[in-house]
Amino acid sequence: MKKRLFTPGPTPVPEEVMLRMAAPIIHHRNPEFMEILARVHENLRYLFQTTQPVVALSCSGTGGMEAAVSSLFGEGDKVITVNAGKFGERWTELVQLYTGSSTEETLPWGSAITPERLKQLLKEHPDAKGICLTHSETSTGTASDIKTLSAVIREHSEALVLVDGITAIGAHEFHFDDWGIDICITGSQKGLMMPPGLALVAISERAQERINEPARKPSNYYLSLKKALESHAGDDTPFTPAVSLVIGLDEALTMIRSEGIEHVWKRHESLAAACRAGCIALGMKIFSSSPSFAVTPVWLPEGADWTEFNDALKHDNGITVAAGQDAFKGKIFRISHLGYYDELDMLTVIGAIERAMKAIGLPLTPGTGVTAVQKAFLGK
Amino acid sequence: MKKRLFTPGPTPVPEEVMLRMAAPIIHHRNPEFMEILARVHENLRYLFQTTQPVVALSCSGTGGMEAAVSSLFGEGDKVITVNAGKFGERWTELVQLYTGSSTEETLPWGSAITPERLKQLLKEHPDAKGICLTHSETSTGTASDIKTLSAVIREHSEALVLVDGITAIGAHEFHFDDWGIDICITGSQKGLMMPPGLALVAISERAQERINEPARKPSNYYLSLKKALESHAGDDTPFTPAVSLVIGLDEALTMIRSEGIEHVWKRHESLAAACRAGCIALGMKIFSSSPSFAVTPVWLPEGADWTEFNDALKHDNGITVAAGQDAFKGKIFRISHLGYYDELDMLTVIGAIERAMKAIGLPLTPGTGVTAVQKAFLGK
Repeated sequence: MKKRLFTPGPTPVPEEVMLRMAAPIIHHRNPEFMEILARVHENLRYLFQTTQPVVALSCSGTGGMEAAVSSLFGEGDKVITVNAGKFGERWTELVQLYTGSSTEETLPWGSAITPERLKQLLKEHPDAKGICLTHSETSTGTASDIKTLSAVIREHSEALVLVDGITAIGAHEFHFDDWGIDICITGSQKGLMMPPGLALVAISERAQERINEPARKPSNYYLSLKKALESHAGDDTPFTPAVSLVIGLDEALTMIRSEGIEHVWKRHESLAAACRAGCIALGMKIFSSSPSFAVTPVWLPEGADWTEFNDALKHDNGITVAAGQDAFKGKIFRISHLGYYDELDMLTVIGAIERAMKAIGLPLTPGTGVTAVQKAFLGK
Repeated sequence: MKKRLFTPGPTPVPEEVMLRMAAPIIHHRNPEFMEILARVHENLRYLFQTTQPVVALSCSGTGGMEAAVSSLFGEGDKVITVNAGKFGERWTELVQLYTGSSTEETLPWGSAITPERLKQLLKEHPDAKGICLTHSETSTGTASDIKTLSAVIREHSEALVLVDGITAIGAHEFHFDDWGIDICITGSQKGLMMPPGLALVAISERAQERINEPARKPSNYYLSLKKALESHAGDDTPFTPAVSLVIGLDEALTMIRSEGIEHVWKRHESLAAACRAGCIALGMKIFSSSPSFAVTPVWLPEGADWTEFNDALKHDNGITVAAGQDAFKGKIFRISHLGYYDELDMLTVIGAIERAMKAIGLPLTPGTGVTAVQKAFLGK
């Protein structure tokens, strides 16, 4: 059976990228590799829309978040975190580990922080050294308005703006420099259409100054942004990088650059809209108040059992979607369209959902979902 | 021109491994991947000769060393490090970072610590909580007698035995359980014939107890052996692993298991002996007093200029060897035979060295080196 992945990481890897990675390995101090790394660095700046360095660490996205927190903050620093899902919670855990505490704003799953509430938080905590936000919260498929939130922070506070862009970069419009972001992280296995194993971290001038303060004691060795920045200046890495993944990333970034980042963002917005339209036409409800363009969170069809529904998708149709997490396991599911997806893929996944609904005996008029998808793309 | 890599990491990757990694990506919570990870865990136990867990972290070997130090030791713990090269020095830097100081034994490059000196150190520091050793010091191509050193430690001390096995595992005989080792680390791009990106860490029962002491405060998030062990118990990982690399590792470990680990060790011993014989026959001197089976360190031929010699190897013959490091840059070079190498490869590298010597005008009787290689394998 053909297998098709609709999960928010790993996401499908294009054959061009696979083939590049299957070439014989080269040495990372070889001029050939350093030339590749220089091009990767240049194309990462394009991806994040920045003139500042974007470093590639050989670790998962979480490693990138930890590198940021541990390189910027220390014992006693006040850092605000916004927790509206599993990955907001991860910011809190990291901040607690490295500063000894955290100022956490918790919100219901599926919601996003408003600019008004953020402004209030900034007033309550004028001494905050940093604020950790999540652009697209993968666990709930919910997007935050990072542009507005960052503007509010820059207007009312000196705090650094840290953005988990792990499932947002390449799906949502993003301008690192223009929006005044200080740190943004993504992972290779997300919008970058790559296998997992690399974290990419963009670092503003303000953040670089903080990282390089002479008094700052390092709290990390491998995940040090200071070391990564020093090496980045010479298009190098402080430790042996995941060579084959960097080479694959070169190919993936070239594909993104040739499509054009504005087109990549628009494609994701339109895939997400069609996916939601298909689900709604099939009688399902969207879980989030502000659904992400990377992953669509949906309440299970009324009367459906998750295991039965998922089995029908996976075993009869070869389709892997993502389950709900924690309290929403068995209640919601998540359809990813992050990375290497096109309009026909949306027809595939909604078509498979129709087939699964039919198989487990839910009420259905076949064609309802896929028609909605077609209309979303082609008009009425 | 055909390109051939003789560097101690990255090392050549077999086509079978490349092909496995080029297959479509699968999700890491998929039963198919968890089955692969279970087999990888089982074969890693075979590789390290242990019944204890060996965890796979998505990072370089240095990340594995940091995970060990940060998960086992804390502020004020006395830990002895032995520094006879770049990677011994790395132990010292990591121990200083996490304990605030280090008890460092420095030795000249190219030498290894003797059991007698180690015994003396243990008497001077009866309160040592750990001792960090390097099995094969890559920067100097020097092997330590880990079996004897570990026996000395276990007889005279309660200190945990930490071994950097990064270029030793798969090249030197190693018995984690029988030799009483507590931590041993290797990297995927070494004896495992893989691209870089994974660190593998074997953890003894004593080390597991230390890691899980309730009073132990975590000093790391991503590189936590505690989290890795918890997930390992269910053949899982705490963070998204480098899926394609784990799948490649499955293939590489299957190849090692089918060759038989004892045969793999003997092959490396015999490749190293032939490589040394070829260099000596060409009038070169071996740098180390105890040369590694993974990488042979050689003084440059008398009268040779490193850049000229290396250019002749690389540009005229497609051969990449490793330069000397730090004070020995331009004085020694290193020929790796770690991982996917056979007897004919030794003929290739020594043959290329003859060609390079000829090209830069060094005295040479063509055939001297390769004859010595042939005799090393085939007898007089």
